[in-house]
Amino acid sequence: MRMRKKKNLDVRFAACADVMAFEPREKRGRWRALFGNDHPLHVEIGCGKGRFAIGMAEQYPEINFIAVEREEGALIMAAERCQQHPLPNLRFVSFDAAELREVFAPGEVDRIYLNFSDPWPPNRQRKRRLTWRAYLEVYDELLKQQGDLCFKTDNQRFFEWTLAEVCQYGWLLQNISLDLHRSDFEGNVMTEYEEKFSSEGARIYRLEARRRLPEFLRK
Amino acid sequence: MRMRKKKNLDVRFAACADVMAFEPREKRGRWRALFGNDHPLHVEIGCGKGRFAIGMAEQYPEINFIAVEREEGALIMAAERCQQHPLPNLRFVSFDAAELREVFAPGEVDRIYLNFSDPWPPNRQRKRRLTWRAYLEVYDELLKQQGDLCFKTDNQRFFEWTLAEVCQYGWLLQNISLDLHRSDFEGNVMTEYEEKFSSEGARIYRLEARRRLPEFLRK
Repeated sequence: MRMRKKKNLDVRFAACADVMAFEPREKRGRWRALFGNDHPLHVEIGCGKGRFAIGMAEQYPEINFIAVEREEGALIMAAERCQQHPLPNLRFVSFDAAELREVFAPGEVDRIYLNFSDPWPPNRQRKRRLTWRAYLEVYDELLKQQGDLCFKTDNQRFFEWTLAEVCQYGWLLQNISLDLHRSDFEGNVMTEYEEKFSSEGARIYRLEARRRLPEFLRK
Repeated sequence: MRMRKKKNLDVRFAACADVMAFEPREKRGRWRALFGNDHPLHVEIGCGKGRFAIGMAEQYPEINFIAVEREEGALIMAAERCQQHPLPNLRFVSFDAAELREVFAPGEVDRIYLNFSDPWPPNRQRKRRLTWRAYLEVYDELLKQQGDLCFKTDNQRFFEWTLAEVCQYGWLLQNISLDLHRSDFEGNVMTEYEEKFSSEGARIYRLEARRRLPEFLRK
């Protein structure tokens, strides 16, 4: 039964070849070649059904987007939605965040987006959170010198924890919004979750974490 | 008219000698001697009518508290309230935060409290905010190696700005509460403002900023 579902998914993914990037490890260090230009590369980790990535790619045609999702059941919905109107600057990829280093070369990425990542509430599970210091270390390696991380969540505890974690890691916190939808932040693109939670009155929290220039650590 | 008010204040302060610390510059480097013990020294900058300082001094008899307020009209209310039941571990002092270095010696202070400081909303006024980097530099000098800063406000923008400022300065963020009164933080002592604003439904934000151990900057 499980294999049949998988086989069915393979067929559906194959039909979305225009918007998918298969065999991502083989593209390591050469993602820009896939797009045929040297525009900045933004990566969303955990794109779900793809609403944010599609909205961003439409809004910023001069930026290349890679939308990553390990859950193939969600990713196929994103890919099929996009396949109806393929965007030249967006590709979907399926792999786990633990494998990021195998898919991107050091300094290859300009920006990383984490939207409503799993907060893994119990403290003993904190190492699974995508803003855990070991993940920041990976992002630090993949991002350009001036690269940054954009993080949104509706989970207050996760946001508090992430603020401390980013600061402890030594990055800069920028453009913090403790109530994104009632802030002067412009051009916000909502995810599926974001629309649902915020319509129920939840606050959305957002931060940008920027790599610190090496001068600071030397001073 | 103004002098008369001042003279009247002088008389009232003189009547509160048990709870006041006059001529604070002369006590620089010798604040512990004033209390006759070597307990930790906590300083509240901007104590208003003193409710927080009195509550904390009652709750923590093994800590010495200095409550600073430049507005004498507010400070006299704090002092007179306390004078009715003097606490051996609390003194009130009148001076401006700009003069902190003249009043405390380097490494003399264990903790600094900033409660509902003026947010100075326009960006051009940011240098007046008590969490502006030039103030952090002063606190950095006055605090012990393991010292920290505790900051509370109901002003969301001021809190967002302070998070970034503290992080940029290189300190650690700890125990962040984005909704203090609905958090598991224990032993919170409210200020006058805090009681008023929170009863009207406002969120109270709190953070602790800890000096970073020198190892970090050397690594």
